[in-house]
Amino acid sequence: MSLLKTIKNGQDLKQLSKKELPVLAQEIRERIISVVSKNGGHLASSLGAVELTLAIHYVFDIPFDTLVWDVGHQAYTHKLLTGREERFDTLRKYKGITGFTKMSESPCDGFTVGHSSTSISAGLGIAMGRHLQDKGGKVISVIGDGSLTAGLAFEGLNQAGDSKRDLLVILNDNDMSISPNVGALSSFLSRTFSSKYLQNLKKDFGTFLKSVPGIGDDIYQIAKRSEDSFKTFVTPGMLFEAFNFDYFGPINGHNLTHLIDILENIKKHDEPVLLHITTKKGKGYPPAEKNPVYFHGVGSFNIDTGGCVKKGSSLPSYTDIFGCTLVDLAKKDSRIVAVTAAMPEGTGLNRFAALFPDRFFDVGIAEQHAVTFAAGLATQGLKPVVAVYSTFMQRAYDQILHDVCVESLPVVLALDRGGIVGEDGPTHHGLFDFSYLRNIPNMTIMAPKDENELARMVKTAIDHDGPIALRYPRGKGEGVTMDPDLKPIAIGKAEVLKVGRDLAILAVGRMVGEALKAALELEALGTSCTVINARFVKPLDKTLILEMIEKTGALVTAEEQVLDGGFGSAVLELMADNDMLNCRVRRVGIRDTFVEHGPQETLRNVYQVDAAAIVRAAREIA
Amino acid sequence: MSLLKTIKNGQDLKQLSKKELPVLAQEIRERIISVVSKNGGHLASSLGAVELTLAIHYVFDIPFDTLVWDVGHQAYTHKLLTGREERFDTLRKYKGITGFTKMSESPCDGFTVGHSSTSISAGLGIAMGRHLQDKGGKVISVIGDGSLTAGLAFEGLNQAGDSKRDLLVILNDNDMSISPNVGALSSFLSRTFSSKYLQNLKKDFGTFLKSVPGIGDDIYQIAKRSEDSFKTFVTPGMLFEAFNFDYFGPINGHNLTHLIDILENIKKHDEPVLLHITTKKGKGYPPAEKNPVYFHGVGSFNIDTGGCVKKGSSLPSYTDIFGCTLVDLAKKDSRIVAVTAAMPEGTGLNRFAALFPDRFFDVGIAEQHAVTFAAGLATQGLKPVVAVYSTFMQRAYDQILHDVCVESLPVVLALDRGGIVGEDGPTHHGLFDFSYLRNIPNMTIMAPKDENELARMVKTAIDHDGPIALRYPRGKGEGVTMDPDLKPIAIGKAEVLKVGRDLAILAVGRMVGEALKAALELEALGTSCTVINARFVKPLDKTLILEMIEKTGALVTAEEQVLDGGFGSAVLELMADNDMLNCRVRRVGIRDTFVEHGPQETLRNVYQVDAAAIVRAAREIA
Repeated sequence: MSLLKTIKNGQDLKQLSKKELPVLAQEIRERIISVVSKNGGHLASSLGAVELTLAIHYVFDIPFDTLVWDVGHQAYTHKLLTGREERFDTLRKYKGITGFTKMSESPCDGFTVGHSSTSISAGLGIAMGRHLQDKGGKVISVIGDGSLTAGLAFEGLNQAGDSKRDLLVILNDNDMSISPNVGALSSFLSRTFSSKYLQNLKKDFGTFLKSVPGIGDDIYQIAKRSEDSFKTFVTPGMLFEAFNFDYFGPINGHNLTHLIDILENIKKHDEPVLLHITTKKGKGYPPAEKNPVYFHGVGSFNIDTGGCVKKGSSLPSYTDIFGCTLVDLAKKDSRIVAVTAAMPEGTGLNRFAALFPDRFFDVGIAEQHAVTFAAGLATQGLKPVVAVYSTFMQRAYDQILHDVCVESLPVVLALDRGGIVGEDGPTHHGLFDFSYLRNIPNMTIMAPKDENELARMVKTAIDHDGPIALRYPRGKGEGVTMDPDLKPIAIGKAEVLKVGRDLAILAVGRMVGEALKAALELEALGTSCTVINARFVKPLDKTLILEMIEKTGALVTAEEQVLDGGFGSAVLELMADNDMLNCRVRRVGIRDTFVEHGPQETLRNVYQVDAAAIVRAAREIA
Repeated sequence: MSLLKTIKNGQDLKQLSKKELPVLAQEIRERIISVVSKNGGHLASSLGAVELTLAIHYVFDIPFDTLVWDVGHQAYTHKLLTGREERFDTLRKYKGITGFTKMSESPCDGFTVGHSSTSISAGLGIAMGRHLQDKGGKVISVIGDGSLTAGLAFEGLNQAGDSKRDLLVILNDNDMSISPNVGALSSFLSRTFSSKYLQNLKKDFGTFLKSVPGIGDDIYQIAKRSEDSFKTFVTPGMLFEAFNFDYFGPINGHNLTHLIDILENIKKHDEPVLLHITTKKGKGYPPAEKNPVYFHGVGSFNIDTGGCVKKGSSLPSYTDIFGCTLVDLAKKDSRIVAVTAAMPEGTGLNRFAALFPDRFFDVGIAEQHAVTFAAGLATQGLKPVVAVYSTFMQRAYDQILHDVCVESLPVVLALDRGGIVGEDGPTHHGLFDFSYLRNIPNMTIMAPKDENELARMVKTAIDHDGPIALRYPRGKGEGVTMDPDLKPIAIGKAEVLKVGRDLAILAVGRMVGEALKAALELEALGTSCTVINARFVKPLDKTLILEMIEKTGALVTAEEQVLDGGFGSAVLELMADNDMLNCRVRRVGIRDTFVEHGPQETLRNVYQVDAAAIVRAAREIA
């Protein structure tokens, strides 16, 4: 009899004896590995948090107590314990349960997430809201050490420590975010684990004491103190205590008995507490323990070997082409430097990092800093390329505007995963970038129709003397032949792919391919189509676009983006400013809604960003 | 003979003896006070940084060494020492020198700023860029303790400490940002200044030693340590040393000799150094020392008394009306809570803070956290109102989208200083909010035509069950009578102010008044105008707008915002989606450029967002 099947909520869990919990943990691990091996998902983080999740639900009363998971991708055990066990097979499938926590999916999900580092801020808001209304109940925010590198987490800590509210922050420290962690804070946290260091602690006190000189109002005299004793002396606990948190830990996050005991103890506190636990990413599944980066977010795999189950084509991805092209260019141009935010593998920069370690900067989960740091590099005549997923670049909107574009600094923004990304859902689709970048003066925005054009656009971006973004989709390329020479594209020049009489289809990015398919269908139906690859969202190719519109009198724009303020909107502005509105227009794109999770192709069909949608739009006006 | 007149650059300054520097400092203070008393400006911060600036230019070789001022409003002394003394009378005047540092104004300005907390990230980028090209030279970033509350600064510290690059960060600690500082970090920094604390330091070591128990791999046993000894033990130095910075200080930032000595000493270091200096905001001008909040950013004042020189009308400002209305509503509705980011006075929330201290949250310069914290509050049934200037809300774009709008939480965003703000210039105008908010699903956006409508929109926002933004201008209201009862406005309902035959003017916010003026002029010229107050940028009043367009066949849209993706763009989308493009259209707004600094009225004229611009646009199509 499976223990897991008997658990519908935390009350059921509390019926188990502590001795049964490790058995349940094992069942949970098997279930997670089984489902993720088929559906793909965030395996390593979820395996690392099994005991922690069990302990939290064993001690606290969720949802009377509120549990906020940072990012949410480690919450599979939580889902299994809160009434979603039967549907767990549908994880990340279209209309199935989501891969992150989502308030509208379960009252046990304290906050809706996907982006990192929100849990302290949200948890504090929840705790404060409860306090003001005398609702009672604890608030527990679980944050990884990787998520702590983001400024938002620090801003949250700063107010939380000051607030004196009843907030428990659990730092789940696996010494990794997605890739191994970076930054001073990371080496600082891991310093704890050296037992030699701990043994030296007492000795250091002595050295330190001797190093403190006389004290006065202006303590300039003691400015330069014995730094060695200082540096090795500070512990993570002292850092968090400096933020007015009571600090407990570090404790082994796979020891259920210890976890439960300390949570029972902490439960009685009513001020900000930070519990520091150490876990192993991928715990309990040897392939994931060995390669936690690969098993962070993984596709289908063979459970026995951990080997990838190949699906579909062996074409190179857009990400691969971006990474290779940048490496080729960087070999000849020492000005090129690359910056990413905890995503060297995801953005294809790992090859760049290996070849040019001095010119590669992984700044941690810190998109704001990545962009402002790049602006500083650009002032020195370098060519920084900031590669971040489209959805995460949203964090740096102000830095792009204020630090890069006001002085028109030549920073390249490489936005991977533009458009619908699939199973990660509403928090991860890159559906806003055209809109949020297009309103910024001095910005140039490109999107390639295929991988060959992507390579040319990388070259275009490097050659350009000003802020420039290139946005490309998640997934495999179109299988086109790559040009032997890498020729840049003239800024603001579109490309006519096909000339017709009745209708112009003006598409950008991946939608260009859909436009060509649609044109074939439409021509079979008797509508003769012009197809234009816009290439640029900003600036638009004014002359060409207006000429084509004039010839046909009917226009369909197509983009894999929200329609509000997007590419089609830019085309309407161009038409209006040139008194060319006397035209029938349909805009194909996402209609003012968040897009759920599911396979890319399913979502493109449901949310009408495919050839069929273009055909439908065209038939309304042609 | 004035010493100041003899200084054109740092080389000139180095010709002075150390004894002459205090005389020069006095001259500089007099000059700053004199100019700011006429032109307005950031007085208190600049007065606090006189000695620091002199010492930096005395010791370092700017611009061979790069100096990055955080925010830049404290850089008046720097401007006076770097060739801008003669033009200093033009400070913040149209076509005069700017109120912040700006690379295009002087090679001595290391980075272009206005928003806070960018200096460590930019400085590190500059240092890294120099290092990669073997350029030599030091990089000095000067950051205030207020600016340290922003996550961006923390992200910068985290990489900087890890990078081992030659970066000097000077923490100019005046225990204030704009208002007195908040947050755990702030009380932590100020803890240094208690000499009693310092005297207790040694004693605490002893207590601490006794409290450290046995050490093992799983140190659960020592989880709860003697927190008092810990808390008082940690110093700011230890915090920064934890980030791998060498820490010097704190030293008196008005003692020139000490400053110069320590900078000479630090100059030899080639790793990250943090120098902590303490200064007094407003130093040397008693009224500013007494009231640094008022003299942070100030208008014209009488030098002898410090009293405000009143200009123009005594009408209440939009800010006042917002603050009063929120207080009135909060008296009857305990769900209303208010959040701001270091701007209780600037946003008019100080009255709210005084009356409802438990329901008011100043989170420091931390717009990201402000919004996510508010989202947490909203999940608990409260009605959080986040009041931040439009330009600063840019920092929270992702939090608005991801933390508020995905779950459509009822958070109110009160965006003060929307539109052209005047003398603070390109980094401060609120010209992007319609565009960056409009692309987010579930968002509602309003802008009032006058202060009475603002009050009604505050009520509307509180009543609305979802994310909603209200955006209003800097400055005095229009002088309209306030309704005795506060009636909300139906979401998405526009208002016809005038019906005409030839042309429809569809305006939003402050531009509604300009539209009415323009309509009068146009009618004198024989063009009969409809004038519509749109009220909502999202959702638009579809029925009314389309009806009015159909009747006239000519449309002018008017907004004080960039045109790319803005209000006029939304109207074009509406027209296109409803096959109503057969219309002549002109969009009045800012044309894809950053707007310089100067008086609001001058800029509105130059950048064509006034009645005259509407008249010109109308005459092109009517």
